[in-house]
Amino acid sequence: MGKKKKVLVFGSTGSVGKNSLKVIEKTTDKFEVIGLCSNSNIKEIVKQIKKFKPKYVCLKDKAAANKLKKRTKIKFKLLSGEQGLEKFSQIKSDISIMAISGIDCLRPLLINIEFSKRIALANKEAVVIGAKFIFKKAKKHKTEIIPVDSEINAIFQLLNLNKINNKNIGKIYITASGGALLNYDQKSLKKVTAKQVLNHPTWDMGKRITVDSATLVNKGFEVIEAHNFFNIDYQNIGILLHRQSLMHAMVKLSDRTTFSCIYPPDMKKPISYALFYPKRMKLPKSDNEKKEYSFSYSPISYKQFPLLKIILEAGKRGDNSLVILNACDEIVVDLFLNGKIKFTQIEKNIKKMFKIYPKKKIKSVKDIYYWDRWARYKTKEILGEI
Amino acid sequence: MGKKKKVLVFGSTGSVGKNSLKVIEKTTDKFEVIGLCSNSNIKEIVKQIKKFKPKYVCLKDKAAANKLKKRTKIKFKLLSGEQGLEKFSQIKSDISIMAISGIDCLRPLLINIEFSKRIALANKEAVVIGAKFIFKKAKKHKTEIIPVDSEINAIFQLLNLNKINNKNIGKIYITASGGALLNYDQKSLKKVTAKQVLNHPTWDMGKRITVDSATLVNKGFEVIEAHNFFNIDYQNIGILLHRQSLMHAMVKLSDRTTFSCIYPPDMKKPISYALFYPKRMKLPKSDNEKKEYSFSYSPISYKQFPLLKIILEAGKRGDNSLVILNACDEIVVDLFLNGKIKFTQIEKNIKKMFKIYPKKKIKSVKDIYYWDRWARYKTKEILGEI
Repeated sequence: MGKKKKVLVFGSTGSVGKNSLKVIEKTTDKFEVIGLCSNSNIKEIVKQIKKFKPKYVCLKDKAAANKLKKRTKIKFKLLSGEQGLEKFSQIKSDISIMAISGIDCLRPLLINIEFSKRIALANKEAVVIGAKFIFKKAKKHKTEIIPVDSEINAIFQLLNLNKINNKNIGKIYITASGGALLNYDQKSLKKVTAKQVLNHPTWDMGKRITVDSATLVNKGFEVIEAHNFFNIDYQNIGILLHRQSLMHAMVKLSDRTTFSCIYPPDMKKPISYALFYPKRMKLPKSDNEKKEYSFSYSPISYKQFPLLKIILEAGKRGDNSLVILNACDEIVVDLFLNGKIKFTQIEKNIKKMFKIYPKKKIKSVKDIYYWDRWARYKTKEILGEI
Repeated sequence: MGKKKKVLVFGSTGSVGKNSLKVIEKTTDKFEVIGLCSNSNIKEIVKQIKKFKPKYVCLKDKAAANKLKKRTKIKFKLLSGEQGLEKFSQIKSDISIMAISGIDCLRPLLINIEFSKRIALANKEAVVIGAKFIFKKAKKHKTEIIPVDSEINAIFQLLNLNKINNKNIGKIYITASGGALLNYDQKSLKKVTAKQVLNHPTWDMGKRITVDSATLVNKGFEVIEAHNFFNIDYQNIGILLHRQSLMHAMVKLSDRTTFSCIYPPDMKKPISYALFYPKRMKLPKSDNEKKEYSFSYSPISYKQFPLLKIILEAGKRGDNSLVILNACDEIVVDLFLNGKIKFTQIEKNIKKMFKIYPKKKIKSVKDIYYWDRWARYKTKEILGEI
């Protein structure tokens, strides 16, 4: 038995964070959680601290951190606030699971690349927005970055494991479940409640990503992730509607032979892949032979999902467009989730923003934060929230 | 541009042979046909000779060879008879496509392994019956053997290309279309004509293999091929009923992630793979995104296909059983195709043979031929043909 791998979990109380700990819980002979980090979810992190006894705990919210001190007798080093998160990001680890949601992940990720041997990257926005900074730094520090986002993880498995040379690739396909509202007409969409949108047919995920699955903004982001991760032209990345969420990606080679990667819609799969890579977790055998399966694909209608088209256009521009759209989307989705705007206003407002923002180059990480703040402010202004 | 690869085609006038030449016809910048070999199909081989101008032509049938001399003015070295085939098998080549059907392939294959750098092996019976002799000799002479049989080819692509370590394999699945008679009841099966059986829903193949697809004898042989080719335990090879014949094999790894290999039911696919390996043929791009696809799987009923069970049992015995059953199957299928017995008698007679043959070890290639002859004679005897 080798030495246990030291694991940091960024965003441990979110959906991916919790799933990561479920995987580690069953493989404590191989992995040791040395640090847990959350925004402010005290109730969940107390449970996690009791179970994993990490050396370090970070709560970004200072008030929550103060409360936490009184809630447990277990010893650990408590970090809090922006500075605390920065220090937490400087802890050396074998594997860091990056599961902080939204653009907030970018800063700790960029710091931690220097201190971790491997990043299991579950955050999407960082790769959509800050890929060039992330991959440059990872290259410099020889840090492995393994995508955990299921479609990107499936491509990684297909390409890296297969040692497929990029020049042999004909086209890559990621699949889209279509989200909760695929068969709703325009009239019904206006009346849709947050509860309806959050009732995803196959995946159990965080709230924003579940709404983004219904607008296909999420799928647009994944195309950009795939482009950034694997250096594949946009024209060679396709989307297939696949309601069952079993086949996450396909790679069609130059001779038109296609390989697909199949696993159930359960984040524990790509997480365990990223933890065990290049080995694989050993699970008791299960038998597909006795079940019926059906996989179906159909074309995605870009007409039905105008935001998908907008995101992809933004991606191709390669300027501040994606920063703007990501921030705007986060704000309007949040307002929808809080019952302040209708579902259809998500699309309307993003479209509005797409017309008015100034197109500027992103030269530094600072530029990212500048345009992120700008877009958040502007979105609220458009919506009359400011 | 590299030197053209010299190709010999064994069984050039059969279904796989013709498909091989269709692939080479479009890639004459890379491959050069130096030899064609058929049993007796003069009409077809004359066309092929005109098109490919091979240095060597072999017709096993001496009478046909004599006729051929008068039919074309193109110069080539003509070989004929058993001895001619032996000489043809001693021609040096970069790639030999082995597409002679049945056990007749074994002898030229075993000779040619010594003279060819790569064997594209389309013949199934040789691997089912003579694997240990084939792979031992191939290892000795460092001859690559690439399976062309689509399911085995798909496994090869999944494993070799993926550099998947055998210990990471959970289970391998090959798919079965179920053949032409899947939904026939026992009563209708009795009345089935050769024409009905030969009307395969997805594949256009030789006659015997098409009948073997309906009885699933063919699928049983493929399980044995997979076992012999990749050294995988029988319990880790499964069969899935998959009517569309698009996904030819799947490999489920120890973490239950599954990879599948997809291409249309067209033998030109695995043939071109075997020719171009480890590179891949470059085809103009086609777009899956605009089409609807559906892949379905359901369990195979071993009850519905008793011959499948018998073949697999024979495989596990590892003695002369498969030689016997292959010979018996070939004879009864031939009689069925010639209208001499009913479809249901295929099963009856193979079952009968399975009960009566003496179980003996196979120690040499001679033993194979002995039991092959024995089984052919015995089958005819049972059927009152002798």
